[in-house]
Amino acid sequence: MLSLKSSSSQRWLDQVDQHLDEILIDHAHCEKKAAGCALNMLFAYVDNEPLCQEMTRIVNEELEHFHLVLDLLKKRGIRFRRLKPSTYGRKLNDLVRKIEPERAVDRLLIASLIEARSCERFSLLRDHVQDQELAEFYGSLFEAEARHHTTYVRLAKMFASDDNVDARLDELAVEEAAIIATGDEVPRMHS
Amino acid sequence: MLSLKSSSSQRWLDQVDQHLDEILIDHAHCEKKAAGCALNMLFAYVDNEPLCQEMTRIVNEELEHFHLVLDLLKKRGIRFRRLKPSTYGRKLNDLVRKIEPERAVDRLLIASLIEARSCERFSLLRDHVQDQELAEFYGSLFEAEARHHTTYVRLAKMFASDDNVDARLDELAVEEAAIIATGDEVPRMHS
Repeated sequence: MLSLKSSSSQRWLDQVDQHLDEILIDHAHCEKKAAGCALNMLFAYVDNEPLCQEMTRIVNEELEHFHLVLDLLKKRGIRFRRLKPSTYGRKLNDLVRKIEPERAVDRLLIASLIEARSCERFSLLRDHVQDQELAEFYGSLFEAEARHHTTYVRLAKMFASDDNVDARLDELAVEEAAIIATGDEVPRMHS
Repeated sequence: MLSLKSSSSQRWLDQVDQHLDEILIDHAHCEKKAAGCALNMLFAYVDNEPLCQEMTRIVNEELEHFHLVLDLLKKRGIRFRRLKPSTYGRKLNDLVRKIEPERAVDRLLIASLIEARSCERFSLLRDHVQDQELAEFYGSLFEAEARHHTTYVRLAKMFASDDNVDARLDELAVEEAAIIATGDEVPRMHS
């Protein structure tokens, strides 16, 4: 699904069942971080106009999702608070090559894989959680994540040939699957 | 005007007349940086919901302005490029106290002063530049900057008493006026 090399395991769904509130809080943080990453990309490649256009769109959408999750938390009486993040993002960012234009390709492809994994997990949550309102909420976010995945891959192809990007996406997807298989002890959206 | 302790000098208007293209390019960078600062504030005070709401609104507006300036540059055949920033932002940020909640107050008040100075300069440009389209453009941005100034001051009052905030704003405005009086040799929006 969307370039991913694995499906999420029952281990993660067990974490969801036991710590749904914490997963929801982490979800809000993830939306915020996604906005931050998109704005960082805009800063890093500010003379690339199509990239700036897309990053602006993504910043706005991720911040909108951030507030949707905050509203959901409030409605459920869950206090939004700081959380230790999962190690997923850091481990993925460690894979970014240091020199341009490879650096741009990797940053965009890693963003694309995070969106893909979020998409896969939202789809799982939509089918898994008993709570109807929550199931519908995850369903409603699914499409945006898939679209963002595609956008990031398309933008990566501005910095390298299609073949190079596809090959690198394949490599990074293997690494991503290994990272997600290891997981985290703390229950998180990407644990 | 809007808490400012000085008006911009003829020296700056001379820079504008001689380097209008460069000022316009810097303007695009300023809008982008304003979005970045607002998102940083959201990250720093993510459990403060009203602040997150306002920062989201400001991120969206600043990015919208960024693209408006990019469009204007394109229409005029000016290539958007990286520019060495003026020293204004760095000098102001050096004034931020290190310990919370004073840090929050200072970050918000400095953002408010930058918005105020932009507002003052847009108003000057609106009346000064001969180019009708450009004059109207600056006029159209004026109101948003004034609104952002007010928002930042109001948010600072969530972190300290009204009297403390007003007194600190007064202090920082004196410093801001000194920084803007010194200026920069390179022509910039805040030189």
